[in-house]
Amino acid sequence: MAVAKGIAEQLERASWIRRMFEEGARLKKERGEANIFDFTLGNPEVEPPALTLATLRRVATEGRPHGHGYMPNPGFPEVRAAIADKLRREVGLPFSPEHVCMTSGAAAACNVILKSILDPGDEIILLAPFFAEYPFYVGNHGGRVVVVETDADCLPEVERIAAAITPRTRGIILNTPNNPSGRVYPAALLRDLESMLARLPNPPLCISDEPYKSLVYDGRKVAEVAALISQTAICFSWSKSQALAGERIGFLALSPRLPDWPQMAAACTFANRTLGFVNAPALWQLVMAEAADACVDVAAYQHKRDVLCAGLSTAGYQVNRPEGGYYVFLKTPIPDDVAFVGLLGQAGRAGGSRRRLRPGRLHPAVDDRAA
Amino acid sequence: MAVAKGIAEQLERASWIRRMFEEGARLKKERGEANIFDFTLGNPEVEPPALTLATLRRVATEGRPHGHGYMPNPGFPEVRAAIADKLRREVGLPFSPEHVCMTSGAAAACNVILKSILDPGDEIILLAPFFAEYPFYVGNHGGRVVVVETDADCLPEVERIAAAITPRTRGIILNTPNNPSGRVYPAALLRDLESMLARLPNPPLCISDEPYKSLVYDGRKVAEVAALISQTAICFSWSKSQALAGERIGFLALSPRLPDWPQMAAACTFANRTLGFVNAPALWQLVMAEAADACVDVAAYQHKRDVLCAGLSTAGYQVNRPEGGYYVFLKTPIPDDVAFVGLLGQAGRAGGSRRRLRPGRLHPAVDDRAA
Repeated sequence: MAVAKGIAEQLERASWIRRMFEEGARLKKERGEANIFDFTLGNPEVEPPALTLATLRRVATEGRPHGHGYMPNPGFPEVRAAIADKLRREVGLPFSPEHVCMTSGAAAACNVILKSILDPGDEIILLAPFFAEYPFYVGNHGGRVVVVETDADCLPEVERIAAAITPRTRGIILNTPNNPSGRVYPAALLRDLESMLARLPNPPLCISDEPYKSLVYDGRKVAEVAALISQTAICFSWSKSQALAGERIGFLALSPRLPDWPQMAAACTFANRTLGFVNAPALWQLVMAEAADACVDVAAYQHKRDVLCAGLSTAGYQVNRPEGGYYVFLKTPIPDDVAFVGLLGQAGRAGGSRRRLRPGRLHPAVDDRAA
Repeated sequence: MAVAKGIAEQLERASWIRRMFEEGARLKKERGEANIFDFTLGNPEVEPPALTLATLRRVATEGRPHGHGYMPNPGFPEVRAAIADKLRREVGLPFSPEHVCMTSGAAAACNVILKSILDPGDEIILLAPFFAEYPFYVGNHGGRVVVVETDADCLPEVERIAAAITPRTRGIILNTPNNPSGRVYPAALLRDLESMLARLPNPPLCISDEPYKSLVYDGRKVAEVAALISQTAICFSWSKSQALAGERIGFLALSPRLPDWPQMAAACTFANRTLGFVNAPALWQLVMAEAADACVDVAAYQHKRDVLCAGLSTAGYQVNRPEGGYYVFLKTPIPDDVAFVGLLGQAGRAGGSRRRLRPGRLHPAVDDRAA
């Protein structure tokens, strides 16, 4: 019983992840654990907020009757109500519980919405640089990825996006703060995007993947994509904001401005069920009914960013100083980034190998969902 | 933004679920809540075992460092070791942690293994009557369902299965105790199946979906599919045995006798990650490292089965007395089961409507994973 051809090909394409680990392990063995710093995975270093942990202890102890059993597939009604309330406050649109489907994190939410809109051969636009898992999510549901480059500051260009849209374009994945660039998309840019999309007869769905929304620095606030772009689905996760990456809890929310949202909500509920998620973990849903707004100490992440960026600048790197998220996206000093990583490995001045994202870029911290 | 054609068609096919709910709600409104008994969903009535709840409280309270963060995608190493140990004891084969991938329940495990073996157009054999979600799981990954009927006692017939196998057959889903028939497949039958499969040049994978394995009655023990059929993948869930259906915790285990199991394990890890599960919920993994063998009181379920079967027999029904699981599969007294359900609804002697599984069968308790 051999594995399917399709997944064998994907494994081959994804093998740089394995090579990165293998190289890191090799270097640690060669030079000692203490001499190799592993920046490869976006696993929260900190513990969840005190409110989250206290709520978890209480929910786990109080024993709500049937609290561990099935609930309606989109989630406990009062949890969905709490999230709708949060979204009304933050986005300023009339979200109801029916717009919200609790999911096993943002990766689940992305797969659920993609399954709901994609027929084979339909297209999804990705803005480079993008989270390396998106192409797999799109491929799961028969979709085709269309990559649109961003400008030198990693900001999307509306004209380029417009030029990439075809009759098969069903969605655009927006990710702000962006992984891996750390760029927060300005409100004006989102407004321009909306102007362009609103002129189309069948505008694609904006899939706003927002796991890093709370992790922004220097007093920034992330512009609410759903407030600025009419046809939006929000994919949210508490993995980063509450350091719960292993627990798989988040939500998918459809904008009340989506004309066919009840039909889309039915499709998402069905996709969430039949993809095998069935529902988001019950216990964590109940925790989030009370702790949805809790957040880790963002100042600590900002401090780490400052230390890392200062060190890299001193070493002579040209650094895209991240405005949010917890990764740093560097410019490689020589055009071939893979060759440069090889040089670094020989010099013994950096840990692990790095992946090629696109020529002229170096990307040391990737793939927060892939261990 | 309309939903995809593919999912719209699936929603249409799945609409009997909605109709069942709507009819139940209508009847409750018409005749009062107390007069309509809802047997439509397999949601555990009981609470999880004391050991499970005590372990949950301790794990939630003790605060293991990074216990809520990412772990390797197939699960915490010590959890996988505990499951491998359990499987060595129960199946009698040399399972190692590398054979085990912790999953968000058995529905996740089924989707993960199906994605790992299916290319578009490949075939999966289902033995009727089968769990109504399987066709959706197969379709998610481009597979084609081939239905093979069972005998009058709902037991598979090896010759019929053999006749249905083609060069595109990649798997057979076995489900014992079977949902919905309640039939436990005898060891001799599984041995005959193995004899037939072992003669094939490329035997299909036996996907053994075992969520009801612990819920068997009258002192029965379920024959271990992986012990009797060489090329087996086990899909397990604690949803039923520990009344944790809403928490989404289970595992996928590859038989050590699968020739290419390391490659298959890599494919499953990748599928688990990229389908959006990423990993099974961390907290519940840690609970299962200690409470994997806990089980609800099976005698209470057996008592309910006895009460229900006695009542149905007294009422004149021909009942397939379930050997396991928590559903009853009846023979409809007139050939058209849907017409009979209509008559029952008018008579006001039963709650809700029922679904048509196949002519001549009546199936009141369906779809345990679909709320």
